[in-house]
Amino acid sequence: MADTVKQLAVLGSTGSIGQQTLDVVRALPNRFKIAGLTAGQNLGLLSQQIEEFKPKFVSHQGRGKLPAGDYRLLSPEDIACLPEVDTVVIATSGKAGLMPTLAAIRAGKTIALANKESLVMAGEIITTEAERHSARILPIDSEHSAIWQCLNGETQPADSLILTASGGPFRNYSKSQLEKVSVEQALKHPSWQMGKKVTVDSATLMNKGLEIIEAHWLFGVPFEKIRVLIHPQSIIHSMVEFIDGSVKAQLSYPDMRIPIQYALSYPERLANPQLPKLDWEHISGLTFDQPDTDTFPCLKLAIEAGKQGGTCPSVLCAADEEAVELFLSRNIKFTGIARLVEQTLVEHKAVTHPTLEQILAADNWARNKVMQLHKGDNR
Amino acid sequence: MADTVKQLAVLGSTGSIGQQTLDVVRALPNRFKIAGLTAGQNLGLLSQQIEEFKPKFVSHQGRGKLPAGDYRLLSPEDIACLPEVDTVVIATSGKAGLMPTLAAIRAGKTIALANKESLVMAGEIITTEAERHSARILPIDSEHSAIWQCLNGETQPADSLILTASGGPFRNYSKSQLEKVSVEQALKHPSWQMGKKVTVDSATLMNKGLEIIEAHWLFGVPFEKIRVLIHPQSIIHSMVEFIDGSVKAQLSYPDMRIPIQYALSYPERLANPQLPKLDWEHISGLTFDQPDTDTFPCLKLAIEAGKQGGTCPSVLCAADEEAVELFLSRNIKFTGIARLVEQTLVEHKAVTHPTLEQILAADNWARNKVMQLHKGDNR
Repeated sequence: MADTVKQLAVLGSTGSIGQQTLDVVRALPNRFKIAGLTAGQNLGLLSQQIEEFKPKFVSHQGRGKLPAGDYRLLSPEDIACLPEVDTVVIATSGKAGLMPTLAAIRAGKTIALANKESLVMAGEIITTEAERHSARILPIDSEHSAIWQCLNGETQPADSLILTASGGPFRNYSKSQLEKVSVEQALKHPSWQMGKKVTVDSATLMNKGLEIIEAHWLFGVPFEKIRVLIHPQSIIHSMVEFIDGSVKAQLSYPDMRIPIQYALSYPERLANPQLPKLDWEHISGLTFDQPDTDTFPCLKLAIEAGKQGGTCPSVLCAADEEAVELFLSRNIKFTGIARLVEQTLVEHKAVTHPTLEQILAADNWARNKVMQLHKGDNR
Repeated sequence: MADTVKQLAVLGSTGSIGQQTLDVVRALPNRFKIAGLTAGQNLGLLSQQIEEFKPKFVSHQGRGKLPAGDYRLLSPEDIACLPEVDTVVIATSGKAGLMPTLAAIRAGKTIALANKESLVMAGEIITTEAERHSARILPIDSEHSAIWQCLNGETQPADSLILTASGGPFRNYSKSQLEKVSVEQALKHPSWQMGKKVTVDSATLMNKGLEIIEAHWLFGVPFEKIRVLIHPQSIIHSMVEFIDGSVKAQLSYPDMRIPIQYALSYPERLANPQLPKLDWEHISGLTFDQPDTDTFPCLKLAIEAGKQGGTCPSVLCAADEEAVELFLSRNIKFTGIARLVEQTLVEHKAVTHPTLEQILAADNWARNKVMQLHKGDNR
């Protein structure tokens, strides 16, 4: 039997997940082809990707010229719906992933989803639409990929989920130590190579909170049955507990290309000599600890927003995105991120079962509210 | 949908695995019924089990009387083939498991297999016959259950297997310390409650060697791709490595009722409040180490016998059974077990692709050889 070739659209191809997706495609050229690429401002890298992968469709938001070639310019939403595309990789970060994800779902595509925000903001709409249009959402996030792999072949849902967290660069820091950390320190993640926003979110544990909301929607598990375990080695990527007391875990070195490739090759697994294999001669121990939600309040804020539902997760996401931006531009302290997010959530009047318009309005409201709070409070 | 009730035949019901199987049945009386029980000499316990579970068919090898009741006496082979039996649990230890296992396979039964020896002695015959008669062999051994659970839903075989081992009571002992250990020390396993034979086999690591041979036949993985990892906490029961660098592991507290119940309930999992759930508040670390095959030569002997194949694993098994018996009756030292097994293997003239008769003849030869070697060498 000849190997099947999958045609991919990679949305957000110049970001961290996008580049690692193209690494996988580069290593397995007989299995994956690039039909479409979309990027933001980074036209230099996009140009190189166009020359290397020769997509037929391209989208970007930059100013400048791309190399001439046999491709057409389309919107990300249109690229996500192209009939020749088998799998749409949503590698854009932030709110920008939401509309193309919905477009791909409504086109009944298989979606390899790395974008957390779309499920966090609009989990109810996305899961309902995916069911209606028989679209499959395959997670790329390492934690959700781990859970998905562990649920593979099981006839019943999980009894509970354990999301592991490295604990970030500030694990074991006290509150007063956290007050003083710099942008440079926050961007030094101990185990994962990621984009700036998610790296800061990992340091505040907001990332783990967003992942809990994401896991809730992807796997239909109530918030009370999802727990976080600090696991500094980042080798167990998450675990599933079943009703009979048995637990399954997925392990690997922290390399995003492994979950990316699995989402692309599923249900098959493909040999890729570039992917690292665990070396048990040098793994002497895996350790676990409970998260400290007192020192890292973002985790608690996210779980609360998830439980309240409605427009709350959307406000959480938007407020965090703005607050992280303020931290990265050195306008607020690291601990100011949680403070701004909390204040914004406190002032929000939630809408239950919101429409997409209400979700986007809440997002907009939250961004303005963060700026307003920030101007009034320059701590 | 009403829950289905499975009719079980439990062969070896008075042994450790047999009793724990009946514990599971006792906890889930609406899902499992006992159609048949077989035992050896322990008529006291068998009588209690007959009164409690009211099987229709019974077999035993004891001298004495069983309570009157509405049951018939049959041979274990006949009980394994009863048309009303859905699953045959082979909980007998040693060679006694082989013929009933083959009988159940030829009757096309689903077999929950705890007996290692049948696969070790006659792996080729058993797997060939199981395929021919569409009989399913579901492993009960915790390591093989773990691997089976991790392979569930995968479309490809494992790339490699990692069998974990507690290391037994003498982990980190030196060769000279091992010379002096007593029967009582060897029977104190740090994590598992098991029968005497398998407890001593765990202390010599022969048990892990037999499990490698078992895993080879159950999962079709070559010996070069099966490794052993010492994991003293006995929480990860084994792992599967896939070609893409991803690894899956199955975890639980060391309680045989979990893999027993899974083999009985498969593909479902059943809630059983008596089964312990991992308490992550109190699990701070899982550690790993390489096995020391120099100090524990039984592991190496078993792998070698497995690779040579033919009648060698049968000789390994039989020699070990006799040597462990000599140790338990205080006729030889702990380190004498490996010595007798090795000498027996050295003197064996292996037959390749043996018939069942040749396997049983090799078993018989090995037992006599051990006794002969023992008489000539009372070290």
